[in-house]
Amino acid sequence: MHFRKAIEEDLQAIVRLLADDELGAKRERYEEPLPECYYKAFKAIVAQAGNQIILAIDGQAVIGCLQLTIIPGLARQGMKRAQIEGVRVDQRCRGKGVGEALFKEAIAIAKSEESGLVQLTTDKQRDDAHRFYNKLGFMASHEGMKLIF
Amino acid sequence: MHFRKAIEEDLQAIVRLLADDELGAKRERYEEPLPECYYKAFKAIVAQAGNQIILAIDGQAVIGCLQLTIIPGLARQGMKRAQIEGVRVDQRCRGKGVGEALFKEAIAIAKSEESGLVQLTTDKQRDDAHRFYNKLGFMASHEGMKLIF
Repeated sequence: MHFRKAIEEDLQAIVRLLADDELGAKRERYEEPLPECYYKAFKAIVAQAGNQIILAIDGQAVIGCLQLTIIPGLARQGMKRAQIEGVRVDQRCRGKGVGEALFKEAIAIAKSEESGLVQLTTDKQRDDAHRFYNKLGFMASHEGMKLIF
Repeated sequence: MHFRKAIEEDLQAIVRLLADDELGAKRERYEEPLPECYYKAFKAIVAQAGNQIILAIDGQAVIGCLQLTIIPGLARQGMKRAQIEGVRVDQRCRGKGVGEALFKEAIAIAKSEESGLVQLTTDKQRDDAHRFYNKLGFMASHEGMKLIF
C-alpha cells in the first residue's frame, strides 16, 4: 500500500468509494459516465491552494481516500488548521489498518505544512468512526454544527 | 452597522477581538506592535482563494469578525462547504444582534458562492454559543473532533 495525491483520472474510483457508504449512498451519483459536477468540483479543489485529495493505493486500486485542506487563520497566533472531509475505505479492505495508515499520512502532511491541529466533523450516527478517531488521538471537544441550505 | 472584507490595516482590531474572550485570552498575543505571526497568517489567508475575514463595522470601529472559507469538495455531488472560524463580537456590543447580522452576511456570501452548507465547530464549553447557533438554524448533528499537535 502507498499514498499519493489524487489526479482527475482517479475520479471514478473516488466517487465509487464516496457512494459505497451508508450515508453516502443517498448523497452521491455513481454513474458511468460520471456526472459533470464531480469533474467541476475536482478542478476547483486543484485550483485552491492547500486543498487536495489523498489516496491509499493497493497495486493499481484506489482503496481509500480523504480530503485534506490546509486553512490559514488568525486565531491561536496565526495557526494553520488542517481540515479533513470525505474519508472512505473500500468495504472489502476494512479492518486492515488502511484508514489508520491514511490518517497518519494526512497528519504527517499537515505537520509538514505547519498546521497546529487537524480537525474534522463526524456524523453523530457514526459510532464506529468516533472510536476510530479517538484511537488516533482526536478529542470530541467540539460540537460540529451544520446549516444545510 | 455595515460589513466588509478585512484588510491588513484591520489586524490590530481583529486580534483585540480574538483575545477579548474567555478561551482566546489564553491563546492570543494582543501586543503593540502586533506579533509578526498575525501578519504572516493574514497574508496566507488573502493568498488562498475562497478564504476571507468578514468584519462588522460600527462607524469606524471593528465590532465583530469571523473567518469564512469556501472549500470545494467531491462529497454530496461536488458540493462546496462554507466553513466558519474565529467568531467574535466586541464585549461592549453584545446582545444587540451584531453576531446574528454578521452571520446572516456570511451565510449570504456562502450562498452566492454556491455553497450547499455552512459548517463550524464550537467548543463544548461554550453553552451560549450553542443556543446562538441553534437559533440561526444550525444543527449539532456532528461531533467536532480535534487533534492538537
